[in-house]
Amino acid sequence: MEALSSTLSKLSITAQELTHASVTSPSEWATALKDAALGKSYVGTKTLVFKPKSKAAPVPLVIIFAKEDAEFSSANVGKAIGHKEMRLAAPDALLQYLSATKDDVSPLSLSSTNAAGATFPVQLVVDSALVSSSEPLAVHAKSDKESLLISYQGLRQVIESTGAEVKELDLASLAGSPAGAPAAKSTTKAAPSASAQAIQQAKADAKIADAELIGINVRKDGDFSEWYQQVLKKGDMLEYYDVSGCYILKPASYSVWQAIQTWFDAEIKKLGVENCYFPMFVSSDVLEREKDHIEGFAPEVAWVTKAGSSDLEKPVAIRPTSETVMYPYYAKWIRSHRDLPLKLNQWNSVVRWEFKHPQPFLRTREFLWQEGHTAHMTLEEADVEVKQILDLYRRVYEELLAVPVVPGVKSEKEKFAGGYYTTTVEGFVPTTGRGIQGGTSHCLGQNFSKMFNITVEDPKAPDEIRGKPEGKLHVWQNSWGLSTRTIGVMVMVHGDNQGLVMPPRVAQIQVIVVPVGITSKTSPKDRDVILDACAALEKTLKSNGLRAKADLRDNYNPGYKFADWELRGVPVRLEIGPKDLEKQQVLSVRRDNGARAAIPSSDLVAQLPKLLDQIHKDMFDKADKEYRSRRKVVTDWNDFTKTLNSKCHVVIPWCEVEACEDAIKDRSARNAEEGAEVDERAPSMGAKSLCIPFDQAQFGDVAGKKCPQCGSAAKRWTMFGRSY
Amino acid sequence: MEALSSTLSKLSITAQELTHASVTSPSEWATALKDAALGKSYVGTKTLVFKPKSKAAPVPLVIIFAKEDAEFSSANVGKAIGHKEMRLAAPDALLQYLSATKDDVSPLSLSSTNAAGATFPVQLVVDSALVSSSEPLAVHAKSDKESLLISYQGLRQVIESTGAEVKELDLASLAGSPAGAPAAKSTTKAAPSASAQAIQQAKADAKIADAELIGINVRKDGDFSEWYQQVLKKGDMLEYYDVSGCYILKPASYSVWQAIQTWFDAEIKKLGVENCYFPMFVSSDVLEREKDHIEGFAPEVAWVTKAGSSDLEKPVAIRPTSETVMYPYYAKWIRSHRDLPLKLNQWNSVVRWEFKHPQPFLRTREFLWQEGHTAHMTLEEADVEVKQILDLYRRVYEELLAVPVVPGVKSEKEKFAGGYYTTTVEGFVPTTGRGIQGGTSHCLGQNFSKMFNITVEDPKAPDEIRGKPEGKLHVWQNSWGLSTRTIGVMVMVHGDNQGLVMPPRVAQIQVIVVPVGITSKTSPKDRDVILDACAALEKTLKSNGLRAKADLRDNYNPGYKFADWELRGVPVRLEIGPKDLEKQQVLSVRRDNGARAAIPSSDLVAQLPKLLDQIHKDMFDKADKEYRSRRKVVTDWNDFTKTLNSKCHVVIPWCEVEACEDAIKDRSARNAEEGAEVDERAPSMGAKSLCIPFDQAQFGDVAGKKCPQCGSAAKRWTMFGRSY
Repeated sequence: MEALSSTLSKLSITAQELTHASVTSPSEWATALKDAALGKSYVGTKTLVFKPKSKAAPVPLVIIFAKEDAEFSSANVGKAIGHKEMRLAAPDALLQYLSATKDDVSPLSLSSTNAAGATFPVQLVVDSALVSSSEPLAVHAKSDKESLLISYQGLRQVIESTGAEVKELDLASLAGSPAGAPAAKSTTKAAPSASAQAIQQAKADAKIADAELIGINVRKDGDFSEWYQQVLKKGDMLEYYDVSGCYILKPASYSVWQAIQTWFDAEIKKLGVENCYFPMFVSSDVLEREKDHIEGFAPEVAWVTKAGSSDLEKPVAIRPTSETVMYPYYAKWIRSHRDLPLKLNQWNSVVRWEFKHPQPFLRTREFLWQEGHTAHMTLEEADVEVKQILDLYRRVYEELLAVPVVPGVKSEKEKFAGGYYTTTVEGFVPTTGRGIQGGTSHCLGQNFSKMFNITVEDPKAPDEIRGKPEGKLHVWQNSWGLSTRTIGVMVMVHGDNQGLVMPPRVAQIQVIVVPVGITSKTSPKDRDVILDACAALEKTLKSNGLRAKADLRDNYNPGYKFADWELRGVPVRLEIGPKDLEKQQVLSVRRDNGARAAIPSSDLVAQLPKLLDQIHKDMFDKADKEYRSRRKVVTDWNDFTKTLNSKCHVVIPWCEVEACEDAIKDRSARNAEEGAEVDERAPSMGAKSLCIPFDQAQFGDVAGKKCPQCGSAAKRWTMFGRSY
Repeated sequence: MEALSSTLSKLSITAQELTHASVTSPSEWATALKDAALGKSYVGTKTLVFKPKSKAAPVPLVIIFAKEDAEFSSANVGKAIGHKEMRLAAPDALLQYLSATKDDVSPLSLSSTNAAGATFPVQLVVDSALVSSSEPLAVHAKSDKESLLISYQGLRQVIESTGAEVKELDLASLAGSPAGAPAAKSTTKAAPSASAQAIQQAKADAKIADAELIGINVRKDGDFSEWYQQVLKKGDMLEYYDVSGCYILKPASYSVWQAIQTWFDAEIKKLGVENCYFPMFVSSDVLEREKDHIEGFAPEVAWVTKAGSSDLEKPVAIRPTSETVMYPYYAKWIRSHRDLPLKLNQWNSVVRWEFKHPQPFLRTREFLWQEGHTAHMTLEEADVEVKQILDLYRRVYEELLAVPVVPGVKSEKEKFAGGYYTTTVEGFVPTTGRGIQGGTSHCLGQNFSKMFNITVEDPKAPDEIRGKPEGKLHVWQNSWGLSTRTIGVMVMVHGDNQGLVMPPRVAQIQVIVVPVGITSKTSPKDRDVILDACAALEKTLKSNGLRAKADLRDNYNPGYKFADWELRGVPVRLEIGPKDLEKQQVLSVRRDNGARAAIPSSDLVAQLPKLLDQIHKDMFDKADKEYRSRRKVVTDWNDFTKTLNSKCHVVIPWCEVEACEDAIKDRSARNAEEGAEVDERAPSMGAKSLCIPFDQAQFGDVAGKKCPQCGSAAKRWTMFGRSY
């Protein structure tokens, strides 16, 4: 309310602030308002938010603000403002675009960042009945516990101060069935009222009819983008944040990152890498020193220009990556060949202020990662390390996250800006058929060392040039990074219609123990025996190094708990009921495949680690089989886009010419539009080269083959695909 | 050079860029220039940087730019521009203020951030002989490998573009002894030339005459501030950075932080705390919501206003701490008393853009820390946690860093802005007699929960108010943080005139193995036997969990290596020579006290962990004894400032009235100026209350005692002192 109050006072608008109990429905709100208003008169309102079906990108958000009892057809309203099909916005969209829920959304949810079209356009429609009201309007004040009584004129000023435009419409005249169109999807004769329509629409959207209320209500293969958001949100991995493109990592996801950190940190230390920390700020001089490199990052660099109320003499940038931050110091620290190799790593966050549509974990404005930066005497030594690190990345995916990846080298076009060559592990999201870059290990060659003058005396230089510029060697450098994107890939690959499916080695909770068979007839004593057994099992498992938890909540039944933990993807559920206790066993249920098996209690501590390993293996095998089946060798251009459109990666014998890569992208994009099976959600973008796999042999002999696109002699088998 | 080139081109100045071998002396530079200039004519220059003795704060930096062969008296130059005593700037000052070394400093080292008085003033004096030169001047171009041939007029433009002012002086006329003053500190009759004087001055500054070149050249108790900088820099803990107030944590210091992280993270997980990550960006609305709180931080908040080349619609702040970042989400997540306690922690960095003089680890614009934020149903539960966490902080200091601290509660004046009460562990730096806040655990009470509306239904509320505002409870909150400041305290407490003294449990290297007794007469075979024994010992120790390293460098003698590892503070040195091999023993040398003892090789693996524990204990006991001896009970005001001035903390029976605290600060500051024993470096600031120690009993019964300052009845024993 503070910020709102300050806006009001800035605009000299009088409004009355009301605090009341948290409300979860219009009727609760009506009651709460009545109590809080202490007899003052006001007009109740409602706010409906739509995301119309539209080819425009981004699709505008349509907000309808009306009297609480207004009846109108949203389809007619849509028509009046130029939309063919209105669709109620999903809860996550409310959160994402307006930082609001259905219980606190109002025109006050608009702010200058979301309204003025920075990331999406807004159309705000106001009921004429409100415009002419002489009484103040009651609106949610950015919270389900606070409301405002404010004149329409005042409210309009606040709205316009955010840059949004207000369109006043006589909603009463827009009731009834849409003029000249059949009531779309409606089976009733009369057009439904807006609130009835809202419910109906919500039901239509909930494609999984029997989903628990707490569960995911769209199919993974139906609306993947919505599924992904729901699974992250409801699986408690992530919370949307009020700065666009930024997200909160909740413990369930941060713990995955910590598991990756712990493993990877130990592995790189074995290679002699040491951790350090460089400041997040970079001066513009240093940032802009390597031109090819900075060109790739410049449009996304965030600049600090003010501290407190004073302007900085010289703005400082927030690092988008640390090559130019670190290398001036490498030039200072590396004085002799004895200072080589220098191997430093940082665990930090970097900022890339992208203006493309953000996506949790995959494209975020701030993200966590590690960045390794090493300097070597020779290219050979640098080469070895590039591959060592890439293999660690492969192992993070395969051995921790149970996600298969294809290791290989990037084409010249796709390599790191300013580097020599880039290696990558490429993942695959079967639902969309799109590839995803999993982590990259770059050899920078001598490009940066020449720019930053990082040299050592060549110990093999003949005496006559010793001490002279010709006797100096520029060091060979690598840089390599792995980010929290790993978590997004893991979720996309393994999750299902019930929610997350967590790979056991990184799951925050590996085993959930749920008491069952307690009914109203169970005596308190028998009940306690079961609960105690669950608590004791949690303790035993924990002391044996398993991440276990007993769910002893007394306000939920087992069915709710099952669904809840399935949503969160806990790999193994153990159920303990009276009969299990009798038989001295527990029932185990696997999250990944639902398999159930009784395990003797005495054997649990020995069996569970094996079971978790088996789950890991099965999850990996399943994903690997899927990925392999979608990696198709194509030698005839006519098959290229068709194969792409069947959600596959395409492996071709490729000429490795950059112009050919451009042509492939172009032709596969154009053809996609003609294709019959294009996934509506997957943009019909062209295919990029994803990598030239190291394992060439699997595709047969490339010698003598022609590039299917241009007909030139092929050099290596190369994997192309649409990608994130 | 890139940035420089762009400045030149912006100003349309023609200059020739030269690349040459790295130079480490004026004569090497002269040779390198000659080669690189390819016959072009130019005038050689030299740049001397002074930090005059001055009462002005901050002391201006004086840069003298002259012909390479110019002779003048720096004392006379100082006099001409208003300084009584010129002192050559230390190497670290060059780095800190100009990002330069003696081998690359030039007027081009100035940049608009350092010249325009953002953090310190600069006076630039140019030799008239250069002003009138018709040939281009040769100057270092921000690197010891690059130079510029540039006209004086061009150079002057570049300098002035940074905001610095140029003073042209006829240096030739300022040779000889200072007019009207004896040649200070000079024993020769003629005033020394500038370069001779530079050497002489450097020697005079090097108060530890026999210090190795690589070693610390000032005494800890002589020039503490310079000692601290040297010990960090030369001990390889830290590098100065080109954004003021930011520093690079090198592996030797970052590893200490990782050791603290690993231990503390495991301990808080035992308490049920989970880790998460919130974005570093905060919207201004949210940031400014809690007014008392933000008032404390507002002047130091860094604002991002631009991304790429476009202005953000609405600036976002970088978190100075995360209360207001996190609590809106606590309001969303906490829906029922079953969601309590909520215990989250973050490992991140925060930014406080302070304009006070920065100090590595103690006051930096970005620092690493953990911040815990928890919510509880009752004050009692919150109270318990506040103390649990504070005790973990105590243990970090005492059990990991061997640093004694006093746990207690802060006065009302010194508590966290917006909180309920603050507990703290207070450390002590004996050399300056100043206290240092080591870590704080705050109970925030219900202040933030009221502001952010974080409520739960009171499970004990009677039915009639259930669901109403009166039936709601505002949660009780805590927040607690520990930062990389820990590292600074550790260094200040333990370091000595030879460098760092690392506490064994956090030392990156615990044991260094050095081969000795290899002479020119040693046969290659015997030499290899010794080296192999050292390498084998490293391996054995490592496989037994000790952080060990063998120093097998062939270009340094044992004496150099001893000094090098002493500088870095490695707790135990093991020496292996021919006689040791014969006797099947190694010689151990302790860093903390120099004690030497032979240990049978067969017993090493068993003995070393005990030795490291003993070192930890001895280091702690020594520091603890010192701290206790400097914690003086004072009951008569006349003794207060005297005790303070003898570098002690003062414990008084205190009334706990805020006005009295102000008076104490005021009176102890004023009196300090009269005191005879005030440390010149320690500001004569007044004393603050540091904490009200939990262990009150140690000071006796407070009942019936009067506050020595105001005479009111004393409440509790309270520790006052000067502090960082």
